[in-house]
Amino acid sequence: MPLMRSWVDSANDPAAEFPLNNLPYGIFDDGRGARAGVAIGDFVFDLGGAEAVSMVPAHGFRDGSLNGFMAEGPDAWARLRNTLTGLFAEGSQAEAQVAPLLIPRDRVTMRMPFQVTEYTDFYAGRHHATNVGTMFRGAENALPPNWLHMPIGYNGRASSVVVSGTDIRRPTGQLKGPEFEAPILAPSRRFDLELEMGAVVGQPSYGPVSVDRADAMIFGYVLLNDWSARDIQAWEYQPLGPFQAKATATSISPWVVTKAALEPFRCATPPREVPLLPHLADTGPMLYDIDLEVAITPEGGREEVIARTNYREMYYSSAQQLAHHASSGCPMRVGDLLGSGTISGPEKGNRGSLLELSWGGKEPLELEQGGTRTFLEDGDRLTLRGGAEGDGYRIGFGDCTGRVLPTLKG
Amino acid sequence: MPLMRSWVDSANDPAAEFPLNNLPYGIFDDGRGARAGVAIGDFVFDLGGAEAVSMVPAHGFRDGSLNGFMAEGPDAWARLRNTLTGLFAEGSQAEAQVAPLLIPRDRVTMRMPFQVTEYTDFYAGRHHATNVGTMFRGAENALPPNWLHMPIGYNGRASSVVVSGTDIRRPTGQLKGPEFEAPILAPSRRFDLELEMGAVVGQPSYGPVSVDRADAMIFGYVLLNDWSARDIQAWEYQPLGPFQAKATATSISPWVVTKAALEPFRCATPPREVPLLPHLADTGPMLYDIDLEVAITPEGGREEVIARTNYREMYYSSAQQLAHHASSGCPMRVGDLLGSGTISGPEKGNRGSLLELSWGGKEPLELEQGGTRTFLEDGDRLTLRGGAEGDGYRIGFGDCTGRVLPTLKG
Repeated sequence: MPLMRSWVDSANDPAAEFPLNNLPYGIFDDGRGARAGVAIGDFVFDLGGAEAVSMVPAHGFRDGSLNGFMAEGPDAWARLRNTLTGLFAEGSQAEAQVAPLLIPRDRVTMRMPFQVTEYTDFYAGRHHATNVGTMFRGAENALPPNWLHMPIGYNGRASSVVVSGTDIRRPTGQLKGPEFEAPILAPSRRFDLELEMGAVVGQPSYGPVSVDRADAMIFGYVLLNDWSARDIQAWEYQPLGPFQAKATATSISPWVVTKAALEPFRCATPPREVPLLPHLADTGPMLYDIDLEVAITPEGGREEVIARTNYREMYYSSAQQLAHHASSGCPMRVGDLLGSGTISGPEKGNRGSLLELSWGGKEPLELEQGGTRTFLEDGDRLTLRGGAEGDGYRIGFGDCTGRVLPTLKG
Repeated sequence: MPLMRSWVDSANDPAAEFPLNNLPYGIFDDGRGARAGVAIGDFVFDLGGAEAVSMVPAHGFRDGSLNGFMAEGPDAWARLRNTLTGLFAEGSQAEAQVAPLLIPRDRVTMRMPFQVTEYTDFYAGRHHATNVGTMFRGAENALPPNWLHMPIGYNGRASSVVVSGTDIRRPTGQLKGPEFEAPILAPSRRFDLELEMGAVVGQPSYGPVSVDRADAMIFGYVLLNDWSARDIQAWEYQPLGPFQAKATATSISPWVVTKAALEPFRCATPPREVPLLPHLADTGPMLYDIDLEVAITPEGGREEVIARTNYREMYYSSAQQLAHHASSGCPMRVGDLLGSGTISGPEKGNRGSLLELSWGGKEPLELEQGGTRTFLEDGDRLTLRGGAEGDGYRIGFGDCTGRVLPTLKG
């Protein structure tokens, strides 16, 4: 599919994150209250305002959350996309009515795009799981026995999910290295990022669902940084998994890119080493070809990219994760957020966490601007970016960024 | 404290679960919509109706959830308790106004008492952790190294929490015993109960909190049965903990017993084998002396008690669990539910799960009425009960019950 041209000039720039082909949803505030909007070129289209004058159907766009619209379901999602495409297409008769509802994006603050009902994080990237497993258990036992049979996941903490731009306070927690006899309470020394994609569940379920049904339940995708305290995790995680190590914050991009916008970029999961059970088996291409990168900006320094990878490196799709999630009868709800798991690629430069980039801290990452990193330092800003490259256009998510603040003194 | 006598006769019966000393909150439906109520003797007092005529302050009692009232905070909780105590005390002048708002409890259906924001389950009973650890890792390594230093917990699934009386569908999941080469998808063969108490968080926090502050944030307590598929858990839980094994359902009692009602029953945690870090150290008695029991009713059989224990057997209080939960900066919210972990006592008859009662299935439990149990069978009804024994009165929670239904055929 080529670029769909719009009368909004900035949406036609081949480098734009938000061409007419994209139309991602978010919640913005221009000082007159939070409402839903759609990004187009350098602007936000005020869906709350459009709803008020019946230019678009009423879907609770003035409620400060996308949950109501998501709950309306795939037909409503398709109808609104169709309406918006018509309003913004080159030659549209609606330009004069629509233009007053466009607000420059640099004049708005983005809020959480939806109310996260529950947050689940997976461990479904093979390169990441292999890297971490090799560090902790040796190359022979890198993947746990269950790993090739199901997308391993754990429940995270929805209250800790924040929108891009929110500062992240380095957590304090129980640490116990081999150098201590007993644990101490101290600021994490191995605070890290995790480059992930998040799938946003837009429809509920009340029993097991097929992979196809799961795919249909997904509204769209965000970039996601699952901030992780490796040292807190090392001491706490046996036998019931990560808890406080993952509870400080998880950042997401401000824009939810819809499945419809990503449709041209669907691609298959990798070949299966062992067959999946039928309820998890691939029924079509459910990953997406999305280039991803991680950039760091040290305090007082400049931004530089430290990792590049692609969402197609995942071993399990979000649809497979959701099918597994519901397999025990677990009710799924509108607004559930599923983190993909860290997305690393095969090469060193493709690793989506400092744990991997510095190989557990043993091989400090050299920054181009000088200095090294094993784990995050106070003042570091981390920024995730993602983009699907179409024919003369690009589908972006907006930056997913956050800066590490020092621990508060108790 | 002796029995506080009420003009509601049934509240003065020494065996009553709901004397004037109790006044637990719940959500009931008598066919005219769900609203908040207080249990007193054999009746529910209609708080929604009382709010409508300004007999009690307005706290959203007609909203079908206690979350709004809980959010008002400890002063509001104390004021309403004081008002209700006055309305129902023997000799109250209000009897004529109040009596029309009493509805027989056997004429109402109880709903979920509050909207569970997020659900966390702990593993903080020493006898349970020792029993399970001994079965899986041997007596020498029964407790993980971190266990005596922090209340180990994991995030559960709020969407799966149901009110007492809800039928529980046996889950299907991936099972892989040593007898299989690869996992199969099949109904759980080791479906179990877990006898727990749940603490209901009634106030939010946005950073680390002290144990005293955590105790003040707790609104009250419920009985909780964390239904668990042991065979699903055995295959899935490494390395990130239980997920689908715990996602089918968690049942809670219909009544939230307030901290105020339990105040006379406070008792201390057991002596510490190793000192706790200061942020988790005991600052006063924060457990409660509450007798607990598990009863089973096989399909077509009669009810019999299979375990008796007491909440004072816990190693960590809910206040300590909440302080640990918030230690990394994890935001806590009104409606968060914290499961205590399975509450077992020192003797065989004190064990709060069939896993322990049948020692992993190796020593089938003999039922008095004939038959045995290793794990739950379809048609089994499980009922948890709890009571604090005062001076001539008893504080009850109402039954926490659920019946196991067979897996749905796919």
